[in-house]
Amino acid sequence: MPTSYELIYWPRIPGRGEFVRLVLEEAAAPYRDVGQLAEGEGGGTAAVMAYWEGKHEGHPVFAPPVLRQDEHVLSQTAAICDFLGARHDLSPRDDLARSQALALQLTIGDLLVEAHDTHHPISAWLYYEDQREEARRRAPHFVSERIPRYLQYFERVLRHNGGEVLTGEGLSHADLGLFQAVEGLAYAFPRGFAKASAATPGVLALCERVRERPRIAEFLTSERRTPFNEEGIFRRYPELDAG
Amino acid sequence: MPTSYELIYWPRIPGRGEFVRLVLEEAAAPYRDVGQLAEGEGGGTAAVMAYWEGKHEGHPVFAPPVLRQDEHVLSQTAAICDFLGARHDLSPRDDLARSQALALQLTIGDLLVEAHDTHHPISAWLYYEDQREEARRRAPHFVSERIPRYLQYFERVLRHNGGEVLTGEGLSHADLGLFQAVEGLAYAFPRGFAKASAATPGVLALCERVRERPRIAEFLTSERRTPFNEEGIFRRYPELDAG
Repeated sequence: MPTSYELIYWPRIPGRGEFVRLVLEEAAAPYRDVGQLAEGEGGGTAAVMAYWEGKHEGHPVFAPPVLRQDEHVLSQTAAICDFLGARHDLSPRDDLARSQALALQLTIGDLLVEAHDTHHPISAWLYYEDQREEARRRAPHFVSERIPRYLQYFERVLRHNGGEVLTGEGLSHADLGLFQAVEGLAYAFPRGFAKASAATPGVLALCERVRERPRIAEFLTSERRTPFNEEGIFRRYPELDAG
Repeated sequence: MPTSYELIYWPRIPGRGEFVRLVLEEAAAPYRDVGQLAEGEGGGTAAVMAYWEGKHEGHPVFAPPVLRQDEHVLSQTAAICDFLGARHDLSPRDDLARSQALALQLTIGDLLVEAHDTHHPISAWLYYEDQREEARRRAPHFVSERIPRYLQYFERVLRHNGGEVLTGEGLSHADLGLFQAVEGLAYAFPRGFAKASAATPGVLALCERVRERPRIAEFLTSERRTPFNEEGIFRRYPELDAG
């Protein structure tokens, strides 16, 4: 593979695409953010939809995000992060530690599914308004039990590894992923997150260190950053932020 | 790492543990199946629960399945399969193809979450009987739309790679994972699966080739195989098998 990438992901929602973006940004890897381009430039929703519908060239993908480089195609957020991490020094070099970074990214992915399902317990193909009642039944368990369990887990992992980064010796894609997940929790569940994160100062400090890294800090204030909103995985619906 | 493994997973349900077992069995790798051992031998539910509760040594894990070898600990099904695959020649050697095998295993993992949530749409911490109504609302979409979409996706991947295996040149953990997922769909949704799989003969033929591999054939008839039942991911509830 040569050196310039394409990221294919839905425009206007951070979703899983933002996890890939953070890795590309920290790696200072040049990339074309296809979903954010105008349709006239071959971008936008139509270009992403072609991947969703299987109307693209190369190895078939099930769903975005997709990383592309010429004829090489890879999907699945954690697989992309692991692949880019190994190539751009954002995965540990030791085989087991690399797999542990992948496992952490996958645990973050599990958290995303649970966070999404608080507002879409019945189906991702129905509106929130059509499953609000079930959402009110599902969300409290996530806020009171699952957010603390996830945050305390990452706190233990961090402590086990010495407190600076989750695994290995340097920053990895897992640390970047945790930063994005924590940002999402703080956005969507401000009350539940404030309560749970009071017990996990190491996680909060790690996220601040990620935020202050020069490339990440520049990215976060750029137009390339996609803010959270009520069409993504993390949505601020105050009625669901009660444990 | 030396050569003998421990698999830590809940006894009596195939769940995600069976995906790891299939890789260990095809690799002919010696392993101790901790959850299946008697509690007096340091096994059973109590031994697995220690991992769930974080009361174990080594790198913290969020949930079983866990692969252990002496002080080395790894969790997350797809990360374990990818790690074992690389070590036992059940992952493609090329970097990109290895990542594609991982991405396929992750797509299988997404299918598992959706299959599970047909009977547990509200919460994994409530009984099926307490969310049966919501399950009846959620399952038809899975049966009529998602099962066909997944099967047709794997059919396209297989065809793109020449028809023998999903990715790379030889059998990988992704092929083993697809076999187990297809077995689960056929068990839980016999009507929906029969209808959808009529359009994916390549997937069915691949699964038969997996079933007939000598080590897999021996495993499937052994006591080490955990059959599907109504406590796992794939449950046969006839009322949910309608598209």
